[in-house]
Amino acid sequence: MTIVTHSRTAKRGTYTPSAALVKDVLAGRAIAIARMISRAEEGYPEAAEALAELYKHGGNAHIVGITGVPGAGKSTLVSALIKAYAAEGRKVGVIAVDPSSPYSGGAILGDRVRMSETAAAGGAFVRSMATRGHLGGLTRATLQAVDVLDAAGYSPIIIETVGVGQDEVEVVTAAHTVVVLSAPGLGDDIQAIKAGILEIADIHAVSKCDKPEASATVSALQGMLSLGGGSGSHWTSPVLPVSAVSGERIAELKDAIGAHWAHLHDTGELAARQRAICKTRILGTARHLFQQKFQQESATLETHIRAVTERRMDPSVAARALLGWEEIR
Amino acid sequence: MTIVTHSRTAKRGTYTPSAALVKDVLAGRAIAIARMISRAEEGYPEAAEALAELYKHGGNAHIVGITGVPGAGKSTLVSALIKAYAAEGRKVGVIAVDPSSPYSGGAILGDRVRMSETAAAGGAFVRSMATRGHLGGLTRATLQAVDVLDAAGYSPIIIETVGVGQDEVEVVTAAHTVVVLSAPGLGDDIQAIKAGILEIADIHAVSKCDKPEASATVSALQGMLSLGGGSGSHWTSPVLPVSAVSGERIAELKDAIGAHWAHLHDTGELAARQRAICKTRILGTARHLFQQKFQQESATLETHIRAVTERRMDPSVAARALLGWEEIR
Repeated sequence: MTIVTHSRTAKRGTYTPSAALVKDVLAGRAIAIARMISRAEEGYPEAAEALAELYKHGGNAHIVGITGVPGAGKSTLVSALIKAYAAEGRKVGVIAVDPSSPYSGGAILGDRVRMSETAAAGGAFVRSMATRGHLGGLTRATLQAVDVLDAAGYSPIIIETVGVGQDEVEVVTAAHTVVVLSAPGLGDDIQAIKAGILEIADIHAVSKCDKPEASATVSALQGMLSLGGGSGSHWTSPVLPVSAVSGERIAELKDAIGAHWAHLHDTGELAARQRAICKTRILGTARHLFQQKFQQESATLETHIRAVTERRMDPSVAARALLGWEEIR
Repeated sequence: MTIVTHSRTAKRGTYTPSAALVKDVLAGRAIAIARMISRAEEGYPEAAEALAELYKHGGNAHIVGITGVPGAGKSTLVSALIKAYAAEGRKVGVIAVDPSSPYSGGAILGDRVRMSETAAAGGAFVRSMATRGHLGGLTRATLQAVDVLDAAGYSPIIIETVGVGQDEVEVVTAAHTVVVLSAPGLGDDIQAIKAGILEIADIHAVSKCDKPEASATVSALQGMLSLGGGSGSHWTSPVLPVSAVSGERIAELKDAIGAHWAHLHDTGELAARQRAICKTRILGTARHLFQQKFQQESATLETHIRAVTERRMDPSVAARALLGWEEIR
C-alpha cells in the first residue's frame, strides 16, 4: 500500500489551465488533485469555475467525519483506517483539519514528499489543510477539497477534525457518517463541553481499549445514549472500543461505518442528510463571501466606523448602509 | 437603595409612539427605558429609528463587562457592586446575559415586580435578556439595551455574561473595562478553555477569597500574566481576591474599575477602544441582518438547496446567487 501525503506548499511553480486540471482530476491524477485542492485552499478566483464543474461530477463518495479532542488518538485511528480500506483496494481520501495532525508536521511521510501519480493510483490520498489565514473560509476550502476527491472517484473520504471550535464542528456536520472518538480517562469537564459533539455522533469509538479505564468510558457513553431517547432515526449509535496501535477491532469500526452508510441508503435518510449538508454549505459559503467583502471594502467600512464612533450614526444604520440596504442618513 | 428588576414579558399591553418614548428615555423614566429595551429585544422594526436617535445621545457611560464561568459567583458579585455604586448615588445599570442569572429567575425581586418610576430614579436598573429566540441577534439586542441606558444617563453600565459561547464573548468585548471572575478550585481543563477570555481581562477578580484555595488561584493568574509579556498597553491587569458574600474587598474592585476608566481617559486609549467597539458592532449587526435576510427568503434558499443537492450548482455559485452577486447559471 502507498500513502501519498500532499503539502500545500509544494508545486506552486507550474500553472495548469483550469479545463486541463478538471480533466486530469476526473481521470484521477494525484498531481492534478493536489493542485486543485491548493487552488481551492488559496481561494484563487479562477478556481471557482473548475470547482463548480467538478462538483457536478461528485456525489458518489461516502464522507466520514472523525472528530475528538486532542489526545484522543484520532490520527492513529485514521492511519489504521487508511490501511484497512487500502487493503480492500478502496481509494480512500483523507482531509485533515487539525493543527496537531502528524500529516501537517510531516511525521508520516514528510511534508515535501514527492508526489507520484502511480503511488496514488491504488492507494490513499492524504492532505492536511492549513488552519490559519483562511479569513473564516476553512470550512469552505475543506469541503471543496472533499468535492475534488469525490469527483476523482475517492470513497470513503475521511474528514479528520479536532472536536473544538465552531469551524470544525461545521466541517464535520457535512459528513454522512460522524465518528466521535473518546479517550478513556478524560475529565468530566471536557466530556461536558464535548456534549455538543457527542450528540452528532453516528458512531462512538473509544480509543486505547487495552487500558483498564476504557470500559468505564464505554459505560458512560452507553449511559448517556440511553438517556438521549429517540432521535427520530432508527439508527442506534454503537459504542465501539478500539485500539488503533494494535489494530484491534478496527475492522469492526470499519464495518460499523459501512453499516451506517447502508442504513442511510436503505431508509432514504440519505436524501434528508444530503439536503441538510447542502443547506449548511450554501449558508456557510455566503457568510464567508460576505465577510470577505467587508474586509476588501475597508475604506467604506472605515468611514462608517468613524460615523458610529462620533455618534452621527448607530451601528444598525451603518450595517444596513454597508449591506447596500439603506441610504446613509 | 432600590433595585428595579424588569422583565421582558411585562408591559406589552400599551403602545407608546417612538418619539414620545425617546423623550421619556432621555428624561430617565424607567418605564420608558424598560419598554424601549423590550422593543429592541423583540426586534420591532419601528424601534430602529428610536434606537438610532437614542444612540446619538449616548457615549458618556462607562461600560463594564463582567464575565466568568457558571459557578464563579458572578451574580453575587454584581449584586454587591450594584449596592456599592448605588450607595454613592450613582445610577448603575445592569444587563445580564446569563441563562442562570437569578434576575431572570426572579430570585431578587421577582420577574413581575411592579415598575415604579420613583424607585428607579435614584437607584439601579437591572434587566436580564432572553438568551433564546434571537436569531443570532443577542449581541445586537444586548448592546442596544446598553445604548438605551447610556442615553438615559446610567453609568456605569454592567454587562454580565457567562464566559462561554461566541455571542457572549462578543458582547463582553464591547465593554470599556472587562472584569473576568475566576473561582478557586476550578479545574485546569476549564482554565485552559477560558484562556481566550482571560486574555481580554482588564481586571481579574478571584471570588470566594475566604476559601483557602483562593490564594493558589491568585498565584496561578499572576503567573500567567507575568508570562504574557507586554500587551502594548501601559495598564497592568490587577488580580483582586474578593468575597461578594461578605462584601470584603468589593470597594477595592470598584476602585480598580474606576482606575481603569481613568487610565483609558488619561492615556487616550479610550478612542482606540471606542473605535474597536464600533467596528465589532457594525460587523456583528451586518452579520445578524444578513442571517435574518436568509431566514426570511426561505423560498429562494429552498430553490438553491435543491439545485445544489441535485448537483446542478455548487455551493459557491448558489451562495453568490443568493447574495445577488452573480447570475444563476
